[in-house]
Amino acid sequence: MLGASPSFRLPGCRELSRVAQQLGVVETRTVTFAEPPGEMPLDSGEKLGPVTVAYETYGTLNNSGSNAILVTHALSGDAHAAGYHEGEKTPGWWNDMIGPGKGLDTDKYFVICSNVIGGCKGSTGPSSTNPKSGKPYALTFPSISIRDMVEAQRKLIDHLGIENLLSVVGGSMGGMQVLQWMVSYPDRVRSAVPIATTLKHAPQQIAFDEVGRQAIMADVNWRDGDYYGQAPPARGLAVARMVGHITYMSDTSMAQKFGRQQKSNDQKSRFGADFEVEGYLRYRGDNFVKRFDANSYLYITKAMDRFDLPGSKKLSEVFRGVKAKVLVIAFKSDWLYPTYQSQEILKACKMNGLNATFCEVNSTYGHDAFLLEVDEETHLLTHFLGGVSA
Amino acid sequence: MLGASPSFRLPGCRELSRVAQQLGVVETRTVTFAEPPGEMPLDSGEKLGPVTVAYETYGTLNNSGSNAILVTHALSGDAHAAGYHEGEKTPGWWNDMIGPGKGLDTDKYFVICSNVIGGCKGSTGPSSTNPKSGKPYALTFPSISIRDMVEAQRKLIDHLGIENLLSVVGGSMGGMQVLQWMVSYPDRVRSAVPIATTLKHAPQQIAFDEVGRQAIMADVNWRDGDYYGQAPPARGLAVARMVGHITYMSDTSMAQKFGRQQKSNDQKSRFGADFEVEGYLRYRGDNFVKRFDANSYLYITKAMDRFDLPGSKKLSEVFRGVKAKVLVIAFKSDWLYPTYQSQEILKACKMNGLNATFCEVNSTYGHDAFLLEVDEETHLLTHFLGGVSA
Repeated sequence: MLGASPSFRLPGCRELSRVAQQLGVVETRTVTFAEPPGEMPLDSGEKLGPVTVAYETYGTLNNSGSNAILVTHALSGDAHAAGYHEGEKTPGWWNDMIGPGKGLDTDKYFVICSNVIGGCKGSTGPSSTNPKSGKPYALTFPSISIRDMVEAQRKLIDHLGIENLLSVVGGSMGGMQVLQWMVSYPDRVRSAVPIATTLKHAPQQIAFDEVGRQAIMADVNWRDGDYYGQAPPARGLAVARMVGHITYMSDTSMAQKFGRQQKSNDQKSRFGADFEVEGYLRYRGDNFVKRFDANSYLYITKAMDRFDLPGSKKLSEVFRGVKAKVLVIAFKSDWLYPTYQSQEILKACKMNGLNATFCEVNSTYGHDAFLLEVDEETHLLTHFLGGVSA
Repeated sequence: MLGASPSFRLPGCRELSRVAQQLGVVETRTVTFAEPPGEMPLDSGEKLGPVTVAYETYGTLNNSGSNAILVTHALSGDAHAAGYHEGEKTPGWWNDMIGPGKGLDTDKYFVICSNVIGGCKGSTGPSSTNPKSGKPYALTFPSISIRDMVEAQRKLIDHLGIENLLSVVGGSMGGMQVLQWMVSYPDRVRSAVPIATTLKHAPQQIAFDEVGRQAIMADVNWRDGDYYGQAPPARGLAVARMVGHITYMSDTSMAQKFGRQQKSNDQKSRFGADFEVEGYLRYRGDNFVKRFDANSYLYITKAMDRFDLPGSKKLSEVFRGVKAKVLVIAFKSDWLYPTYQSQEILKACKMNGLNATFCEVNSTYGHDAFLLEVDEETHLLTHFLGGVSA
């Protein structure tokens, strides 16, 4: 396993005032599951194989194998949750939360994060080579579900020799995976932290995803998904990302960050960016295109929209047989995954007799808060995980 | 003037229980202003001319000319606010509010509505012929502002021989025009009803508009605006409209209207519409393309984003010298033009000593409520206008 740099402990300091350290250089590994019959059955009835899963680990698995925490990522995330890749200056997407002395303390816990299948960061997805054709899957890639993502993670956990997870922790789509883990493997999950997430998408959430998909598919470069080796549907994907970014922020955080601040250097064209907020969105959109595959965006958003943990079950049956201790976290200004959806998760937990707690963090950051409210989350996770592992 | 069908009055009935009647067949007229120097100076420093304004009127102007009400339309509206065009089954966009016995009672008031300049429904806009080139303006059309729209309306009001407006009433972008009228012509506006609007766009509002613009400009058929006579940027405009529609509804109204209702007949393609909400948005997007010009969408959204009534003025100076009696209306679930923005309008009115009232209607319809909460608006407008005209 990848070693964490030794933690620096100030003598006599209490837990939370320990100086957090960086993990240093980490690398993404891959494992390919090609065992007979070589194909993984999927929720859709289709099959996928061989399946490669890209993952990173931080900290050390203890002898009893009881300190493993799986971190699950959101729509545009990947296996690189913490530390630095060789030569890179930007750390993993949840570096503030994972490391020695941090909320997910790698001096105590063995933290695993893997790229979802359907993704484009090392795990098998639509941009991977279809072994049957020797060409990229494109739309011959099968439809995948949140449960399929969890199945691939379960294969990884087995591969790492881990029987039980101390916790599964994730926000947004990562939170859906957390909830699916609770239900799919009730005997292997000791605790769960679904953050800023939902049991199922409401129509407004589906609608925003659908706008993103339509923007991608409206791009002539999309070519029904067959664009690999050619120009990708960059403008469509950028528009999709722009819509996403608005929903990840809040009216308040946008007002605080941008106000009506004018942009000085893009006034020449008739429909140039007058305002900072426009320039920011264009920048984020254009940047996203460099690191994300448009077809993955389509597949993954469909998986989110179709996710429906209760399905035909009553709320009082959803978590039947689940034993995990649960911490549900929501953020006050998150209007994409509003607090009422987290309260619904808590309600389902309570109706099934689970030991569950709910915390609404008073943040103005909107949905992005799950990546930004580090102090609050650190306190919450430190104590919650301490209680579970004790 | 176009005659209203005679009102049916039940003897002894109180005002609001009168049976509202339809206006019947109406038609859109146009007037072209080509007086020397033939060009209208615009906020941008550019000029536009000749300027044609498309308009409709309902009811009859009284002898003293004191019963004229100007209705101003929103982004995708037009001059056809009420009644039916010959042979058509769909009435004007605010037909529920305008007619004999309705909130804007055409038995009492002479109601005028005109298409904004920059639009595509009869008033001069980017799809009109540029007299200098003999071809459609496209992007040679000058940038227009909310104040320019009001200037064109003022020319129309002059043309109709009206000195003072009993009221100016409008929602959303129509509300911006209402506010601009108060400031531009304080001596000609006796009352004003800004509905679900704002003194200036917040960055989230700009951001949603910018996504729509980017979707249009990303469409290869847009061709820098030079698409007239060729295929229009239909898919881009449809995506823009889809984003718009989400912001016009609310999380609650979407949940009530669609829930997670599945669509039965579009499951064949990999990214088809699974859910009713997706089918609805696609339908509304595709439908919009048939009736709206993409360049008008660009010009008009820019006018909205740039609108900033206070500008460098303090709130206590915005309405200095304004005499209008004001009724500000907002809707509880409207997250596109949230109540706090209407309260800001009220505050500015009060800080300038205006006779102003604020009412928040308890609706779940989101921003669309200004078109849908007919009963509440009818009561509010009937009594407010009755008080002004008395």
